[in-house]
Amino acid sequence: MIRHLLSAGDLDAATATLVLDTAQEMASLADREVKKLPTLRGRTVVNLFYEDSTRTRISFEAAAKRLSADVINFSAKGSSVSKGESLKDTALTLQAMGADAVVIRHSASGAPHRLANWIDGTVVNAGDGTHEHPTQALLDAYTMRSRLGRLSGLNVAIVGDVLHSRVARSNVLLLHTLGAKVTLVAPPTLLPVGVDAWPAETSYHLDSVLPDADVVMMLRVQRERMDQAYFPSAREYSRRYGLDGARMRRLPEHAIVMHPGPMNRGMEITPEVADSPRSTIVEQVANGVSVRMAVLYLLLGGKV
Amino acid sequence: MIRHLLSAGDLDAATATLVLDTAQEMASLADREVKKLPTLRGRTVVNLFYEDSTRTRISFEAAAKRLSADVINFSAKGSSVSKGESLKDTALTLQAMGADAVVIRHSASGAPHRLANWIDGTVVNAGDGTHEHPTQALLDAYTMRSRLGRLSGLNVAIVGDVLHSRVARSNVLLLHTLGAKVTLVAPPTLLPVGVDAWPAETSYHLDSVLPDADVVMMLRVQRERMDQAYFPSAREYSRRYGLDGARMRRLPEHAIVMHPGPMNRGMEITPEVADSPRSTIVEQVANGVSVRMAVLYLLLGGKV
Amino acid sequence: MIRHLLSAGDLDAATATLVLDTAQEMASLADREVKKLPTLRGRTVVNLFYEDSTRTRISFEAAAKRLSADVINFSAKGSSVSKGESLKDTALTLQAMGADAVVIRHSASGAPHRLANWIDGTVVNAGDGTHEHPTQALLDAYTMRSRLGRLSGLNVAIVGDVLHSRVARSNVLLLHTLGAKVTLVAPPTLLPVGVDAWPAETSYHLDSVLPDADVVMMLRVQRERMDQAYFPSAREYSRRYGLDGARMRRLPEHAIVMHPGPMNRGMEITPEVADSPRSTIVEQVANGVSVRMAVLYLLLGGKV
Repeated sequence: MIRHLLSAGDLDAATATLVLDTAQEMASLADREVKKLPTLRGRTVVNLFYEDSTRTRISFEAAAKRLSADVINFSAKGSSVSKGESLKDTALTLQAMGADAVVIRHSASGAPHRLANWIDGTVVNAGDGTHEHPTQALLDAYTMRSRLGRLSGLNVAIVGDVLHSRVARSNVLLLHTLGAKVTLVAPPTLLPVGVDAWPAETSYHLDSVLPDADVVMMLRVQRERMDQAYFPSAREYSRRYGLDGARMRRLPEHAIVMHPGPMNRGMEITPEVADSPRSTIVEQVANGVSVRMAVLYLLLGGKV
Repeated sequence: MIRHLLSAGDLDAATATLVLDTAQEMASLADREVKKLPTLRGRTVVNLFYEDSTRTRISFEAAAKRLSADVINFSAKGSSVSKGESLKDTALTLQAMGADAVVIRHSASGAPHRLANWIDGTVVNAGDGTHEHPTQALLDAYTMRSRLGRLSGLNVAIVGDVLHSRVARSNVLLLHTLGAKVTLVAPPTLLPVGVDAWPAETSYHLDSVLPDADVVMMLRVQRERMDQAYFPSAREYSRRYGLDGARMRRLPEHAIVMHPGPMNRGMEITPEVADSPRSTIVEQVANGVSVRMAVLYLLLGGKV
Repeated sequence: MIRHLLSAGDLDAATATLVLDTAQEMASLADREVKKLPTLRGRTVVNLFYEDSTRTRISFEAAAKRLSADVINFSAKGSSVSKGESLKDTALTLQAMGADAVVIRHSASGAPHRLANWIDGTVVNAGDGTHEHPTQALLDAYTMRSRLGRLSGLNVAIVGDVLHSRVARSNVLLLHTLGAKVTLVAPPTLLPVGVDAWPAETSYHLDSVLPDADVVMMLRVQRERMDQAYFPSAREYSRRYGLDGARMRRLPEHAIVMHPGPMNRGMEITPEVADSPRSTIVEQVANGVSVRMAVLYLLLGGKV
């Protein structure tokens, strides 16, 4: 039984698989035009966003509303946070107002864990600093499984700015649990210290990794971080770690290309690749709603 | 059968009349305290607003909620748009999240048309640049018909900054379709190039138009545009194209005064006129909700 | 019968007690997991916030949603207000859109009263300037009654920046009506002119008031106001009017400590006090939702 979803590492294989199976149920209900379930009627889900992330917020909002929950959006900008209120006091306030679940996005790694210590309700980590983004990892795993039929034994290359990527970190943890083999592909300056302790291989050479990859997951480049400290130029980065048509054609025929979005078209991925049939980028978004429905359903329903 | 509402010009007379009749049904249900219809239960309407417009957003939100749809507000400020995401990727994202209808307000003329090319769902233009605002035209037509009993043969004067007005453009198209005769009244600098190809008369003299007008629609003056390039001064503009009590009394007794709001009281319209019984300004707002209910109902219900 | 809640002074003892009793019903339903009532289904509550106040907005939003109302949030920033629309025109617009209740927060004292003159629907004052915040007073009264069993005869000390506090003003009015005795404790510079006409005692000395207090309500210090004009320094303020553990221990054993939040921990209240069992700060938040449910229920249901 887990009460929160703070880290992809909290999920053992059975629990993760239960989430994916439940998400599949949700998706198949939606396909059959069952778009609204009464499950969470009367429950309140608060989206507590200290960082702007319209995509993630909307995805959770749509998921909660399809389960008939009441959704309250709390953007920390211009709130009492700006009057200096602590995260703890905000947490206690939301709980007192009857929040059954708090979905939190925060620029500080570890903020969701602290929140979970203070409140009785469910906490879902929707991205904390450079740390974790577990529902992204779940929707990615869901997408791989649904495209390739399995997760165990898959070769997954995660390419780009691993250093700053909560998506990479959560994916490594979850994919390892589910039996996939992950290779992190990045220049040395964009790999975190201590990466050798992660359950993943590393490589500096994208081209050498492609022929054996079942999945290539391109990370979003934070343009503002692509400065002299890391790399000579954006163009040089793109040349060495971007995915274009030529590189895509070196992948095995069944391989898929993923991206958590939003993309920098022309930077880490070319439009040809982004819009190709191998690309799962739009599916990932759709799967995100199903996976978040599953997470809220299981956590608030006490099913995990 | 139409799937989107992009331009008032897309509506033929029969379809436009169906929208107005349906809006009347919606209004009469509300009058009988039937405030919530189950029609769109389980459907998701996304308000995708790249420009601030609280009035229009709230009107669509109220309309969708009365039809029991789930509404998600997406303000482009501080979203991944500001991270450089393209309109196309945003569109595909919203569709993947299950948006059944996207109501879009955008500063670029033509943005809703592009959106409609990319997604399967319904697109409703809630104002694009200086181009169109078709639900405004529908609510204006509804208001005229409900006050004056008909549209065919009405003399409608649209007064002011026609050049920058999507309201004017959509009204001209729709009113022409429905058999009214439109006269655009503005200084030459505030009439668009090519206006002679529009299905409307033009005049530079408000006073000469008033005695025959059944409807006078005052446009909002964009103060920031009232600079030297167009007009010597705001006061001069007001003197020549503003509607005050003296001018109002030159109208036929049955004539009405309209304004899309928000008004600059004292600029294009005086308080005496705005608050007179001839003024339909508040009715227009109320009719806006009914008309938008009708639009969402017909488009999402596949009734047009 | 009252239609609006503009001032705590509008409530006579019977009406105020009815609100508190109804709030208690609401709380007890929530305790029995009845979290959603159908009472306001089809009704629209608009949160019209000219000042940021996420806490108050969320509390009203949660209250309205638990009563099954549709909630529309209208933040005046970036709205037509910034295009110069008057409060009156905004009010008429919201009414025309079918708002059954408008919950207004405004920086100008008296704005809710003006609003109530213009519209037919219900107006609830959610804080106007330095004037009033009646639902805060109701939730405070509810909290006192629920902790101490009664209101009549209680000694309540309200401590701090009374001059700028709408919370203080509304509490004084309501507590007087309900038979409690209020002492305002503040330096002379932070007491309003004319305070001798209020139904309350005043004192400059916190320490002398504590031994007889049943309730100590600490007001939030507006740090930006704690300048030379009022006080030599924040530290000096804190030393003379802050509540710390030593002072708390001079209270009678049954006495409680209140704060409307958000707190400046270490300024007007120390963490030791804020987190002690005497503190009702989190309860106040929870009670806020019940009280606002009661207010909306009674006003929109025509029960008062």
